[in-house]
Amino acid sequence: MLALHFDGNLKLKEVPQPEVKPGEVLIRVRLAGVCRTDLEVLKGYHGFQGVLGHEFVGEVAGPAASPWVGRRVVGEINIGCGACDLCRQGLARHCRARQVLGLKDRDGAWAAYLALPEANLHAVPREVPDEAAVFTEPLAAALAVLEAVPPAAGGRMLVVGDGSLGLLTSWVLALKGAEVHLVGHYPQHLTLAHRYGVLTFLEKALEERDYEVVVEASGSPSGLDLALKRVRPRGTVVLKSTYAGGYTLAPGALVVPEVRLFGCRCGPFPPALRLLAQSWIDPRPLIARRFPLSRGLEALAWAQQPGVLKVLLDCGEGG
Amino acid sequence: MLALHFDGNLKLKEVPQPEVKPGEVLIRVRLAGVCRTDLEVLKGYHGFQGVLGHEFVGEVAGPAASPWVGRRVVGEINIGCGACDLCRQGLARHCRARQVLGLKDRDGAWAAYLALPEANLHAVPREVPDEAAVFTEPLAAALAVLEAVPPAAGGRMLVVGDGSLGLLTSWVLALKGAEVHLVGHYPQHLTLAHRYGVLTFLEKALEERDYEVVVEASGSPSGLDLALKRVRPRGTVVLKSTYAGGYTLAPGALVVPEVRLFGCRCGPFPPALRLLAQSWIDPRPLIARRFPLSRGLEALAWAQQPGVLKVLLDCGEGG
Repeated sequence: MLALHFDGNLKLKEVPQPEVKPGEVLIRVRLAGVCRTDLEVLKGYHGFQGVLGHEFVGEVAGPAASPWVGRRVVGEINIGCGACDLCRQGLARHCRARQVLGLKDRDGAWAAYLALPEANLHAVPREVPDEAAVFTEPLAAALAVLEAVPPAAGGRMLVVGDGSLGLLTSWVLALKGAEVHLVGHYPQHLTLAHRYGVLTFLEKALEERDYEVVVEASGSPSGLDLALKRVRPRGTVVLKSTYAGGYTLAPGALVVPEVRLFGCRCGPFPPALRLLAQSWIDPRPLIARRFPLSRGLEALAWAQQPGVLKVLLDCGEGG
Repeated sequence: MLALHFDGNLKLKEVPQPEVKPGEVLIRVRLAGVCRTDLEVLKGYHGFQGVLGHEFVGEVAGPAASPWVGRRVVGEINIGCGACDLCRQGLARHCRARQVLGLKDRDGAWAAYLALPEANLHAVPREVPDEAAVFTEPLAAALAVLEAVPPAAGGRMLVVGDGSLGLLTSWVLALKGAEVHLVGHYPQHLTLAHRYGVLTFLEKALEERDYEVVVEASGSPSGLDLALKRVRPRGTVVLKSTYAGGYTLAPGALVVPEVRLFGCRCGPFPPALRLLAQSWIDPRPLIARRFPLSRGLEALAWAQQPGVLKVLLDCGEGG
């Protein structure tokens, strides 16, 4: 089958269909997304080799005995061992021996087919088109921010970064009724937050005030700098960005104002699918461009340009 | 009056008695403590100039009309403006215009007298001797860790650092019924945690396992390194250390395991005084040496040696 394979270099090539283990299904990928983490992997973050891609919507193609066959699905990306202390405590997504779709020890979604355990699947409601369903994973990641925000937080919240994840996060916080501000670099991105009632700022125009919660989704150390400057004492910074390289933290910047810094990665799929089914979140304006899988190298080159929102790969028969 | 004054250099000298503003009292200092933050200030952290010292027990000497006169007291160290948004929200200790005793815009306790607002005072119960009462502020700082630890946390906890704050923190967590491990450098310090049921380790002997909560009280970047290595996924690191210089944080080290890093500074005085009054915490074994204020320079030189626990200054008439 056709796949975008990374072994230090990204190549479009024919690879064998993935092996389907007991309890797993084979999924024909319809659409797959490119995320900033993928671009970091291409720069060497994570050390992954294999078929990349962890955002997808597809259709279960087999094995014939599976009750999932023929259903349109999205899938959670972490696969725990099921036996260790963390898995037994419900923390399978942090299993030390886990596989992560397209990121760790398991081939991903930038291919005609992928394999996942049935336990990872969620059926996509009929009213959610593929172009929206492919955002389930990043929308779930945005919803994870709600788990990190103190339930009583009622003050102003700031999202740093106007990429797809920053925009989705600002929308999700706005749906909670919070007063949400979004700061970024691209006026045309910031505009996408206006219909959710989010107040937006270019960075140089951000007003001097502080925030009870700041979400750092910019993918750069300067975003964390800004977050720590703008969070109020005893406030919370939710850190979403993963990137190669480090951030120089002055411990006093956390200790003196008693600030809480939460690392936050994956989130819950069921509420994400409900928000999509109700059209409370419509992620389709985030789509920058769609490429067939056969033009995947071009797609990735395009996605690596600054200021590009979500790039999608058509992996279906048209791909 | 005699005082230890810092203006880039620490000097023992005669200075005027502190001015007592309306709502404030004059306190005759009996005993004052030396804390690691003070030693950092002497190295330039904070940029403070004036009389140092924020740990003390004393007796209210005036003004004559105050109901506090003659009472033995300890005092909270932050003085908010009382009018700003943070003060009105009960966050006076984070007031942007705050003074901090012996640390910011207010002369401290390494002197014969200090001044504090009546609102900052707590009466010392008769059964608490001066040598224990002088630990109220650091014990409150240790109790602040309990506010940061998730209430449901029932797993193993690790305290990094066997200085006074690390030891007090390990004791306080043990009183909660937690399984507490303490890692440090000095066998004779670690021994002080044994009667609280704390399991102790020299760093090279720390076993390979992870912890639901890690408290970093070592005062060094290597302590935070160890904390982030040993905290379990979705666990909490409570950061107590403030020091000049930075720590290079790889954001993935927080984001991927979804770890929470809490800055934690000051804590509540009333429970600290209750624990002392009940003798559930007896901090006196932490006293390394006592010097009269008149030998304050010698005391500070002594406190700056590695591995020295609490140094006290006798500031009373014997001082």
